[in-house]
Amino acid sequence: MAQVEWFDDLTIGMRFRSPEVEITEADIKRFAAEFDPQPMHLDHEAAKETLFKGLAASGWHTAAIAMNLAIQARPFGPHPLIGAGVDGLRWTIPVRPNDRLHLVGEVMSLTPSKSKPQGIALVKWTMFNQNDEEVYTFTPIAIIPRRV
Amino acid sequence: MAQVEWFDDLTIGMRFRSPEVEITEADIKRFAAEFDPQPMHLDHEAAKETLFKGLAASGWHTAAIAMNLAIQARPFGPHPLIGAGVDGLRWTIPVRPNDRLHLVGEVMSLTPSKSKPQGIALVKWTMFNQNDEEVYTFTPIAIIPRRV
Repeated sequence: MAQVEWFDDLTIGMRFRSPEVEITEADIKRFAAEFDPQPMHLDHEAAKETLFKGLAASGWHTAAIAMNLAIQARPFGPHPLIGAGVDGLRWTIPVRPNDRLHLVGEVMSLTPSKSKPQGIALVKWTMFNQNDEEVYTFTPIAIIPRRV
Repeated sequence: MAQVEWFDDLTIGMRFRSPEVEITEADIKRFAAEFDPQPMHLDHEAAKETLFKGLAASGWHTAAIAMNLAIQARPFGPHPLIGAGVDGLRWTIPVRPNDRLHLVGEVMSLTPSKSKPQGIALVKWTMFNQNDEEVYTFTPIAIIPRRV
């Protein structure tokens, strides 16, 4: 993994990789009950009748797990992951109970601020499951301090 | 609120409004501990030293709450909220403990599928706090069945 501390240490094309995490059926149902209580995320039988053809994680659950994995990948070293927003958020295939998920990130663009000692980095993150299928991708608009 | 059942019932400019929900400090810390364990979301004192100048909800927590509010607004009547992705996701100001949040949605575009009995609706959702400040906005790419 690249050794990065400041915005200035990042280069286009630099890549990061997170550890792997497993998502359980209990996790899926608990998150859904609180934030996305729809049949495809709550109940096996009801989920079969939906577009998902079986129980699948809420996309927002996938997004929250991805945030945790991105933190663990430490793309900006000791600096926090702070975003003004996200571009290109896409859910490509359903995340299922017992999927093992990891993230790969790649630096797509770097824009130093003209007025502040910081810069905007766009890192495109892609989440893969245990079969190396792409399940989710997102590109946060991250703010990172410059070395001063 | 508009009475909508199918894609065909939606019109550009149609608006929706969710109920209001309060976010607690305990909610903020619990979500952060699981998904976004960074100082600005976990601890009052540590948060003061960050860009947030005090405890603030994870942006992904805000996004998950917004999903729940969008479901409650029932923009597509009995049909589920299913999205291929999200455009224009932006966090504009921090969400704080005890903020009371609601969503307003507006139909921005409607594109019927050429091959399937469904359509894509873009609804721009904006979340406001109790001071009517815009805290978050997102535009899901929603798939809704057509009346056949």
